[in-house]
Amino acid sequence: MAKRAVILTSGGLDSATVLAMAHAAGRECYSLSFDYGQRHRSELVAAAHVAAAVPGTVHKVVGLDLRGIGGSALTDDAIDVPTMPSEGIPVTYVPARNTVFLSIALGWAEVLQASEIHLGVNAVDYSGYPDCRPVFIDAFRNLAAVATKAGVEGSPIDICTPIIDMSKADIIRAGTELGVDYSLTVSCYQADAEGAACGACDSCRLRIEGFQAAGIADPTRYQHGN
Amino acid sequence: MAKRAVILTSGGLDSATVLAMAHAAGRECYSLSFDYGQRHRSELVAAAHVAAAVPGTVHKVVGLDLRGIGGSALTDDAIDVPTMPSEGIPVTYVPARNTVFLSIALGWAEVLQASEIHLGVNAVDYSGYPDCRPVFIDAFRNLAAVATKAGVEGSPIDICTPIIDMSKADIIRAGTELGVDYSLTVSCYQADAEGAACGACDSCRLRIEGFQAAGIADPTRYQHGN
Repeated sequence: MAKRAVILTSGGLDSATVLAMAHAAGRECYSLSFDYGQRHRSELVAAAHVAAAVPGTVHKVVGLDLRGIGGSALTDDAIDVPTMPSEGIPVTYVPARNTVFLSIALGWAEVLQASEIHLGVNAVDYSGYPDCRPVFIDAFRNLAAVATKAGVEGSPIDICTPIIDMSKADIIRAGTELGVDYSLTVSCYQADAEGAACGACDSCRLRIEGFQAAGIADPTRYQHGN
Repeated sequence: MAKRAVILTSGGLDSATVLAMAHAAGRECYSLSFDYGQRHRSELVAAAHVAAAVPGTVHKVVGLDLRGIGGSALTDDAIDVPTMPSEGIPVTYVPARNTVFLSIALGWAEVLQASEIHLGVNAVDYSGYPDCRPVFIDAFRNLAAVATKAGVEGSPIDICTPIIDMSKADIIRAGTELGVDYSLTVSCYQADAEGAACGACDSCRLRIEGFQAAGIADPTRYQHGN
């Protein structure tokens, strides 16, 4: 029987690649997205398209009101998304977001009797978010081993980060080989309702540079023309 | 300046006691409850009453759709709440619930610049849930130290479990001394809309035995008379 895996699917480039990798590795894929009050809601549409493009994938959206907590440019309209690189941890950091997302994935994985959770964190072309670092993933893996029924019964759910050491260009190359259609994905922090990207935020810049470095044509739709 | 603490407030007896303890210890208290699709929704009303009874406490309810994940008698109407003790981990266990709740508390604590999260887990009169064990709390504390901006900047948010080693009777005695009005609290897994308890589920049994052992009159309202 194929191993089951829950894949955190944001609608972005990285998680689309991770989903394609999990499918290629023979996993039965359960894609999980969150409607958490994010500014860039077109990513939810993108996530559904990304999941639908991978045969046999079950896609679920869990509602979660992180706007009530605020504290980030992505969930609080009073904080602008920056268009210039910043020092330290950027204001687009959503407090404890990956901890929250992984926790809910852990619950779903337990219900599904899935043995793995895959997520597209990356420590190279790196956002500066504390919860994208390998040390965070290791700590969550240790938590998962004791947090669940599966863990208590001796088969903890593993946390898999297949692209953590890859450059953005390598990720794009790997996904392209697996047939990922990156035109379905949205990386922009302030994409418009149709998913067209601003081309200026941190996430757009990393993506643009990634396609350039990979020597692959960038299929992203931009708000003010390409 | 008083230290800020986020307190997970379920509407039950244990967390009401923890909130009273945090207030008595001089903490500025931020009470957090979850509308997660639970069967026993009267606990949300109880949580608001419990928080309102502690002067200066800010109370927040975060919406979270755990019903979409299912897998527990508390979030899936197809699974009955048992009225007899069971072997192993009970069907009332909600997969990864404390992991999810603590994660969201961590996000709110970070936004508030709170230094502590308090929760009423208990390892003595113990539910059999994997995520109520000291080993789980230790793993979450380690995670919190690396998961957040506060952690990266050298002041990790601590996880405080003041009643983890207390018997139910000791918890009730301590809360009574601090003036907790336990008639406001609802412990029952299948309380009715007015918060009256079934008197038969695991949670009711632990509570009834606790009041008996403490030698304190039980103010709980039961569905079929006391």
